[in-house]
Amino acid sequence: MSSTLLSRRDLRFLLHDWLDVTRLTERPRYAEHSRETFDDALDLAERVATAHFAPHNRAADLAEPTFDGRRVHTIPEVRAALDAFADTGLLAAAMDQRVGGMQLPQVVSAACFAWFQAANVGTSAYPFLTLGNANLLLAHGSDEQIDTWVRPMLEGRFFGTMCLSEPQAGSSLADVTTRAEPRDDGTYRLFGTKMWISAGDHELSENIVHLVLARIPGGPPGVKGISLFIVPKVLLGPDGTPGARNDVVLVGLNHKMGYRGTTNTLLNFGEGVHRPAGEPGAVGYLVGEAHQGLAQMFHMMNEARIGVGAGATALGYTGYLKSLAYARTRPQGRPVADKDPTAPQVPIIAHPDVRRMLLAQKSYVEGALALVLYCGRLLDEERSAPTEEDRRRAHLLLDLLTPIAKSWPSQWCLAANDLAIQVHGGYGYTRDYDVEQHWRDNRLNPIHEGTHGIQALDLLGRKVTMQGGAGLELLLETVRATVNRAWKADGLPAELAGQLGAAVDRIALVTRRLWGGGDPEVALANASVYLEAVGHVVVAWMWLEQLLAVEALGSPDGPEGDFLAGKRQAARYFFRYELPRTGPQFDLLESLDRTTLDARESWL
Amino acid sequence: MSSTLLSRRDLRFLLHDWLDVTRLTERPRYAEHSRETFDDALDLAERVATAHFAPHNRAADLAEPTFDGRRVHTIPEVRAALDAFADTGLLAAAMDQRVGGMQLPQVVSAACFAWFQAANVGTSAYPFLTLGNANLLLAHGSDEQIDTWVRPMLEGRFFGTMCLSEPQAGSSLADVTTRAEPRDDGTYRLFGTKMWISAGDHELSENIVHLVLARIPGGPPGVKGISLFIVPKVLLGPDGTPGARNDVVLVGLNHKMGYRGTTNTLLNFGEGVHRPAGEPGAVGYLVGEAHQGLAQMFHMMNEARIGVGAGATALGYTGYLKSLAYARTRPQGRPVADKDPTAPQVPIIAHPDVRRMLLAQKSYVEGALALVLYCGRLLDEERSAPTEEDRRRAHLLLDLLTPIAKSWPSQWCLAANDLAIQVHGGYGYTRDYDVEQHWRDNRLNPIHEGTHGIQALDLLGRKVTMQGGAGLELLLETVRATVNRAWKADGLPAELAGQLGAAVDRIALVTRRLWGGGDPEVALANASVYLEAVGHVVVAWMWLEQLLAVEALGSPDGPEGDFLAGKRQAARYFFRYELPRTGPQFDLLESLDRTTLDARESWL
Repeated sequence: MSSTLLSRRDLRFLLHDWLDVTRLTERPRYAEHSRETFDDALDLAERVATAHFAPHNRAADLAEPTFDGRRVHTIPEVRAALDAFADTGLLAAAMDQRVGGMQLPQVVSAACFAWFQAANVGTSAYPFLTLGNANLLLAHGSDEQIDTWVRPMLEGRFFGTMCLSEPQAGSSLADVTTRAEPRDDGTYRLFGTKMWISAGDHELSENIVHLVLARIPGGPPGVKGISLFIVPKVLLGPDGTPGARNDVVLVGLNHKMGYRGTTNTLLNFGEGVHRPAGEPGAVGYLVGEAHQGLAQMFHMMNEARIGVGAGATALGYTGYLKSLAYARTRPQGRPVADKDPTAPQVPIIAHPDVRRMLLAQKSYVEGALALVLYCGRLLDEERSAPTEEDRRRAHLLLDLLTPIAKSWPSQWCLAANDLAIQVHGGYGYTRDYDVEQHWRDNRLNPIHEGTHGIQALDLLGRKVTMQGGAGLELLLETVRATVNRAWKADGLPAELAGQLGAAVDRIALVTRRLWGGGDPEVALANASVYLEAVGHVVVAWMWLEQLLAVEALGSPDGPEGDFLAGKRQAARYFFRYELPRTGPQFDLLESLDRTTLDARESWL
Repeated sequence: MSSTLLSRRDLRFLLHDWLDVTRLTERPRYAEHSRETFDDALDLAERVATAHFAPHNRAADLAEPTFDGRRVHTIPEVRAALDAFADTGLLAAAMDQRVGGMQLPQVVSAACFAWFQAANVGTSAYPFLTLGNANLLLAHGSDEQIDTWVRPMLEGRFFGTMCLSEPQAGSSLADVTTRAEPRDDGTYRLFGTKMWISAGDHELSENIVHLVLARIPGGPPGVKGISLFIVPKVLLGPDGTPGARNDVVLVGLNHKMGYRGTTNTLLNFGEGVHRPAGEPGAVGYLVGEAHQGLAQMFHMMNEARIGVGAGATALGYTGYLKSLAYARTRPQGRPVADKDPTAPQVPIIAHPDVRRMLLAQKSYVEGALALVLYCGRLLDEERSAPTEEDRRRAHLLLDLLTPIAKSWPSQWCLAANDLAIQVHGGYGYTRDYDVEQHWRDNRLNPIHEGTHGIQALDLLGRKVTMQGGAGLELLLETVRATVNRAWKADGLPAELAGQLGAAVDRIALVTRRLWGGGDPEVALANASVYLEAVGHVVVAWMWLEQLLAVEALGSPDGPEGDFLAGKRQAARYFFRYELPRTGPQFDLLESLDRTTLDARESWL
């Protein structure tokens, strides 16, 4: 039976038929790899996700972690799954061999991780947060810090977190108030409270390595005065083994609607509960230079944002496959043209409205997966392209696409989960089926790692304007290259190319118009609409790209032909039902609409 | 402090300033009423909903009903609230005085009920299902049945259900298999299983009156052979007091994602657990004629469908008010034009993107409330208009609007709840705030009482074509009358009128095109898109209607002026951000798109 987590055929299509990842092995960084090693990694991920992550997905939702005032309790399956994950070595899949990594392409690593996110997004969060933490330290930590903290993370002994938000500072990191006082020995003592810290406490690992944003007294106000610190839950003895408790104390767990397998915490630093250093304060170690915390954290955050998009995609994908399986087997009703009540009922997939809901999901989740993998491919380009110029361009494009890769799947794969429930009818509303949990879990994604609105400001306010608009220019140029290839192809790609070309032209026009007035308040008032419209165009581009890869494979008979026909139909769906939504959005943006800007608070 | 359940000012506006409900008192049916009695009923509803329903909304979600194999256990607050509700007498608010009703207009009664739905949709379901049951028996039951079953329901002693679905027959009622065997004494014995029965078992009332669809052996197949039966949980002794248990047995409770305060059940009829009649079978009493069950049930179902729309609206409304209150008080970030990090943070309502999310919610929930009340007003017209022709037209229009009044709020007030979560950020994702529950509760509404897809087929396949298209013609004519009034008004209404006029013309054109081909399969393939597009046009009409009422009130200073300005801005929002969505939808419909129709099952 084929998996209801992800589709191996689709992954093969995206990685090999479309992105041709095996060509990466021609480059020195990936020279030791081959199509076989890539496929082995995917097999391993599928196997471990299926065997160890999927089975307790519901159990972890029903029995969320509890805090007895001293310790956090988690169902035992979580620890067992994390041990199995550690054994795979996949945490270091994309890392350099010099630090013990497999040096797999990021695009392959991302595909592997999607299996775990589809199987159990709550349990997956522990290693994936650890991965982000480790990657940050690899980029900005000292050799000693890497040795002390990253190595045990890669072994699965330590887990990591990122501690940015505070109760009064969520989206607004400028308002972080956690204080880091320097000591003569070069260490710091931290005092403050951090909110929304995922995996902030648990008994699943020997230690927890918190990466904490805090202010060194005397630094500049706002984001320019934020520094980054390693603050472990347990201090290490001289031999590197965990010793005394650091003064990091769990105040309480947040009780969420979904994503319930992952603890989410309010943490106190330096309240004086523990005094390992004989004086108040949580012991912390500065990462890199002082006052560079935000820039360093953004290294992790960009990666985390694409990770959020990937998680949203995985949840959408598994919901699609489950509703598809349900639709094939659930008999209900009869075709419009044949209402004889004595005839047997047909499977609901026979109803066009059900196929509409399935095609919509397919177009969202396969489009999102293409985007997420494309971003992974760009990171590989940034890491391995032969010329500096190629690496620079990949970086620029990835930077521009990041808010879209975060937001678009968070919005539309959530919509896919909504449709997955709808396909199930009343059954989908019960906890006997998985899809309601996927929907609840997925609802976090438009919020964490920067809300939808924050991503919109990032795209239109920063990414589009940076370097004189070079990033957007590059995106449009890249999409136009696809359009041009499609023009030259026969059949469906050529048929759809004009529509995408026109949409790209509108992005250029509307962006110029928004910034042409010179008033950032007006330009940014509808940033969310801009994000959504550009996102839809980008995913339409992903569909045209896939379609070109499909055409290259012809029209074989059998399941392979069905797979390719499905891709064609989903592309058609996206261009007919979805891309046209952007028309009114661009109209609104072009009009420099002031409705929200002019709405006074007292009117609401 | 103003309520965060509903807005009294908005209700006053809709009922009095717009619908002018006091004029109804000029008609014989409502002659004993006055604006004061209407307002007294609303006061009462607000008071009881606030004091007895809202406080345990979360508790009932956290501690859903349990079944120990013998009895269902519910938190005690539910019973207390239902007693308080029974004391109000509001269940009979709109009923005839001859049966003990208040004979209030339906539109006022609906506004009263919205308070309870906003406060606690789970607890409210018990009386509202009872109401639908009672109304059906008032319409189709014998005098004796009314006396025996309806009277105790109005006293709050008996509750009612509607038992349509079976495990194998949800949307497809043609496949109902529950059997009703006649006995010589004129009673029946029922055998079968009913699924998804809300309030199907509990200990909250002396008795439960099930209205059950079943087949009398020998009747025609399909929906034409379905009859309707009263099947009480407890049979009544000769003196009318509850006696022996009937053979209706709770098999189990469904565990839902939301709406958790309402039991939802799988019931067995006639399994032989109880044998009150000395032989197998649940004792049932035929309502009206045999084989008329579906038509009779539709009487209840149409009312229930508008009730679903009203419930969705109420959940959307309270979510809006709660996110508005949060946005006024939560400080975060600074205006785009003023990023001085040492300045104090501003309440998030100062950010245009937050105002966008608030305006969107406002336009959805106030538009939906207008639609629901408008439907109530049509029912009053049907009951009290001076001429037969007026009554006929009201009935026709209400019939056409019913699938829209059910679906549009279910879709868009759910979207409002999604935005209410988003306004709250991370807090909105926790169970410490109400909005996540509203979103989960509201997700049921596009499913029960006929899914979104079923409503779409009802609208485009039945309502639009019935009586040679007279219903749709009447809708378009009625909307055009509003457009013409708006043309003649000054200012904003005239500015928006053309846009609505054009949308109405497109409905006419597209409908003709869909049915012009003569192929119902093609016509109905995109019925859901049609439902959504027509729904948006109808709600735009509701906004233009409201706007005309606003203009009549001028532009006073102070809070009243703010209220009216808010209505204007929400109308503007709807016409600029929402109505244009219908353009691509109509384009798709006009093209007779076959994407979903042609998608083969094996392609998905």
